[in-house]
Amino acid sequence: YGKNTIKFLRLHKEGKKHFVKEVEVCAHLRLTSPQEYLEGNNSLVIPTDTIKNIVLVLAKKNGIPSLEQFAIDICNHFMTTFCQVAYVKTYVQEVPWQRLHEDGVPHIHSFICVPDGIRFCEAEQCRNGPLIVFAGIKDLKLMKTTQSGFEGFYKNEHTTLPERHDRILCGELFCKWSYGECKDFDFDCIWKKIRECILEAFAGPPDCGEYSPSYQKTVNCIQMLVLSRVSQVQVIEVVLNNTFYNVVDMKNLGLTNDKEVLVPVEAPYGSCACTLGRKKFFEA
Amino acid sequence: YGKNTIKFLRLHKEGKKHFVKEVEVCAHLRLTSPQEYLEGNNSLVIPTDTIKNIVLVLAKKNGIPSLEQFAIDICNHFMTTFCQVAYVKTYVQEVPWQRLHEDGVPHIHSFICVPDGIRFCEAEQCRNGPLIVFAGIKDLKLMKTTQSGFEGFYKNEHTTLPERHDRILCGELFCKWSYGECKDFDFDCIWKKIRECILEAFAGPPDCGEYSPSYQKTVNCIQMLVLSRVSQVQVIEVVLNNTFYNVVDMKNLGLTNDKEVLVPVEAPYGSCACTLGRKKFFEA
Amino acid sequence: YGKNTIKFLRLHKEGKKHFVKEVEVCAHLRLTSPQEYLEGNNSLVIPTDTIKNIVLVLAKKNGIPSLEQFAIDICNHFMTTFCQVAYVKTYVQEVPWQRLHEDGVPHIHSFICVPDGIRFCEAEQCRNGPLIVFAGIKDLKLMKTTQSGFEGFYKNEHTTLPERHDRILCGELFCKWSYGECKDFDFDCIWKKIRECILEAFAGPPDCGEYSPSYQKTVNCIQMLVLSRVSQVQVIEVVLNNTFYNVVDMKNLGLTNDKEVLVPVEAPYGSCACTLGRKKFFEA
Amino acid sequence: YGKNTIKFLRLHKEGKKHFVKEVEVCAHLRLTSPQEYLEGNNSLVIPTDTIKNIVLVLAKKNGIPSLEQFAIDICNHFMTTFCQVAYVKTYVQEVPWQRLHEDGVPHIHSFICVPDGIRFCEAEQCRNGPLIVFAGIKDLKLMKTTQSGFEGFYKNEHTTLPERHDRILCGELFCKWSYGECKDFDFDCIWKKIRECILEAFAGPPDCGEYSPSYQKTVNCIQMLVLSRVSQVQVIEVVLNNTFYNVVDMKNLGLTNDKEVLVPVEAPYGSCACTLGRKKFFEA
Repeated sequence: YGKNTIKFLRLHKEGKKHFVKEVEVCAHLRLTSPQEYLEGNNSLVIPTDTIKNIVLVLAKKNGIPSLEQFAIDICNHFMTTFCQVAYVKTYVQEVPWQRLHEDGVPHIHSFICVPDGIRFCEAEQCRNGPLIVFAGIKDLKLMKTTQSGFEGFYKNEHTTLPERHDRILCGELFCKWSYGECKDFDFDCIWKKIRECILEAFAGPPDCGEYSPSYQKTVNCIQMLVLSRVSQVQVIEVVLNNTFYNVVDMKNLGLTNDKEVLVPVEAPYGSCACTLGRKKFFEA
Repeated sequence: YGKNTIKFLRLHKEGKKHFVKEVEVCAHLRLTSPQEYLEGNNSLVIPTDTIKNIVLVLAKKNGIPSLEQFAIDICNHFMTTFCQVAYVKTYVQEVPWQRLHEDGVPHIHSFICVPDGIRFCEAEQCRNGPLIVFAGIKDLKLMKTTQSGFEGFYKNEHTTLPERHDRILCGELFCKWSYGECKDFDFDCIWKKIRECILEAFAGPPDCGEYSPSYQKTVNCIQMLVLSRVSQVQVIEVVLNNTFYNVVDMKNLGLTNDKEVLVPVEAPYGSCACTLGRKKFFEA
Repeated sequence: YGKNTIKFLRLHKEGKKHFVKEVEVCAHLRLTSPQEYLEGNNSLVIPTDTIKNIVLVLAKKNGIPSLEQFAIDICNHFMTTFCQVAYVKTYVQEVPWQRLHEDGVPHIHSFICVPDGIRFCEAEQCRNGPLIVFAGIKDLKLMKTTQSGFEGFYKNEHTTLPERHDRILCGELFCKWSYGECKDFDFDCIWKKIRECILEAFAGPPDCGEYSPSYQKTVNCIQMLVLSRVSQVQVIEVVLNNTFYNVVDMKNLGLTNDKEVLVPVEAPYGSCACTLGRKKFFEA
Repeated sequence: YGKNTIKFLRLHKEGKKHFVKEVEVCAHLRLTSPQEYLEGNNSLVIPTDTIKNIVLVLAKKNGIPSLEQFAIDICNHFMTTFCQVAYVKTYVQEVPWQRLHEDGVPHIHSFICVPDGIRFCEAEQCRNGPLIVFAGIKDLKLMKTTQSGFEGFYKNEHTTLPERHDRILCGELFCKWSYGECKDFDFDCIWKKIRECILEAFAGPPDCGEYSPSYQKTVNCIQMLVLSRVSQVQVIEVVLNNTFYNVVDMKNLGLTNDKEVLVPVEAPYGSCACTLGRKKFFEA
């Protein structure tokens, strides 16, 4: 197969107001015959340069109504135009430009980059198969400074970790979900709703939070809340890359450190992940 | 000289509400004698490990009232404690944790990382010299989709750039300023005010913007606005790392692209910088 | 599942001569029950900290005879020690320290880091399943300045790429292969032999090279040569991330540029990949 | 001022043998008047695009006989062509392509990237001032597994570091030197000689090494050896970014770890630097 990455900006205006989407598109094709690998016969190969042109032309003609719709458009174009394509996958990721505001007034053409979780989506299709759409968020960094512990774990002669009932829970979250049959979904609205679910499940109620007995359970809470609130989601995968913080031992410096000063522990660096579907549970 | 980097988290509570600062501190010492370099005599050397302990102990004892005050505290500690220190510089940078909100309600202990411009400061002092404090913002990415051009530049036989009166202005901004005599400044408040000035000078009025004839002039506008609005700033340096976007030529694809689809040009990558003071102008 | 990364250094001496291996180990476990996700019951969970201790203890006791043997040792330990482990995968990657030489004389304890292709391996096992070992090389950057072209590809209205019979072929190579039944393989020796095959197939004979009609065909040549020369390899995957170079058009600068000055094209960035086995061909 | 970065490849042939240099050039100009900043008057501004064209044209016409000569050529061009240029600095850095060898036979057109220390240089000139040339090496990672300690350092109540007489010395080296009057220097030959001096001073004799009482003393040894062996070097700056390794305490795991298993300590991360000239010593 071949794949390639294209970065570009799509502008449009409504009256004097400007709208901008900057995206990175990665298209991934598999052909029906591997003859270019085996025989050096290039006659079916669609060059990277042509793929780039197609993506840019589609952006020019259709705009980017939503990341998901744009990914669907690209898949459809390749499947209907090239009979030598057996499989196509399109990944679209957004640069998080947000409109600037001055004293609450939105600016008509100025933007600031606010990377507090990057939105992406995928569309994939095999010839004669259904078109499947995924969406997700990545690089979302969250922290809870209390209401987190880790106790009652398995112990043997290699265990040195003490039990803790009041630690920091901090990590970088990756979340990806699949939609079922994509009718006329409002992808932007659903995405925002899911982002809110993630934050709510991570943090708990604003006045007291909710105790997390492990990173794993927090991952599961996020999945359960999304599945219960957002009916369009079929399967949801969450990966939480943990950053651990150790309370600095200041006894030999003559001080008592009551969880006031902590240092990040860079190794070992842990991660936990789980994929949860509607009826069937699978953990991978 | 020697320097080193220490990352840590400082937590404190007011009632049930948690506050968090995660910082990266870089301390830079020069000793009165270079004997450890020339003779391998370590008797005056303050080990990295000791410097780390001092920074952590100061954070524990004083907290981090503001980045600037913490940097000042560290400088003062080294100057008053170690007579072999000839010069000390402290750099403090913040991880941009922001309190989470649920339906507008602030969460008592949950935070999200929002890196839309990183705050930093520096304090430096030579023995018997004044303590000088700098503050700044970096990694602030901004874009204007119109009201920017570049015309009337110098031309010769190596010129191929066309004049443009409606291009994209996009870049990553670095801004650093020095304070004069630091009395009881409200460093947090001043920093926020300067950030607003930068955004305002970059973008212009929200309903129409302001035409920028060059990256250089935009840099100057930012400096002038900060100096006029914030009396505590003595000297201000601005560096703007430009990202250029080219309108894709779609003629050979049979289309007219009216500044709708643009691609970033990764090389050459340009940058312009200027340092501006209150009375005296110096360009470096 | 959970995974985590551990970095460490393993030293040993033979007489006065020092040997060093610095590795990054990533262990990946799946338990027989997902109860920690669903119920917050941690009683079967093996903490990251324990996994780190086990890896370090195994390194201390057994050393790192080869990356592959070390990965096998870790898998075996988890499978035989913890009956709650359903699946284990271990990834081991090496920091490429090489012994320093002075005028051809090897130094007994000094090393230089030479990252011209990073060696890694993987071992994985399901409970009651076979132990499977993979090895590979990554971040290997290669260039041919001639004997490469791309012609006869599929064309339609979106094609703008000209045919070329003398271009630069440049890319970053990733290669991973699986071993069959691992008897007493000399993993170090086999790895070096495969690296030589890759370089030979990429470059062709030293006096004239060999024409490459596409990145895809070069990928296939590498696979075929490895499979024909190294009988222990069962399946081999190659990914080539291409860097394209364009000859700079200097006509409007009054010069003819005969493939003397070229600039890298950063987007679109292409990649081609293929997996080839002994009897069966599968392209993914 | 303005600066920008240009990446390109320069090929040339001698008979059938190909030679390649891939470089990154950064040119930095300051004009005699800041009118483009203050008044938005662009009439003296040399666009980034023009600078790129000039660099590429010079590479096409003169080739890149050595990095230093190419940097000198660029400076000369700007000073003699543009009377509005008050100052020019050119930085040139090389991508470390090395010719491939098969069984000791050099390949005529195939190369491998071997980043074991990156070569760079700088040339700078003020109008009516001398042309000054610097050269250097960066990203050179070195390790000594013994013959290094750190003892007799300053101690007070914040000291927790134990004295050590057999630690690992590991770091990333940056080294930059200036040449005096640049006559017809063989820059390639001098650079190789200095690289050898660095390695020799770092490692000591191959059969026994040489004891290092501190990172600082090792920095000084490197400087002294270069100054004594290479008469063309006027001033030499060395920065050593240290990576510390801690022997893992395995007592609570029932094992004695005799400096066999060590983990890198990522924070605090230290660095020491020194600049040494021929007659005058200055430490900064």
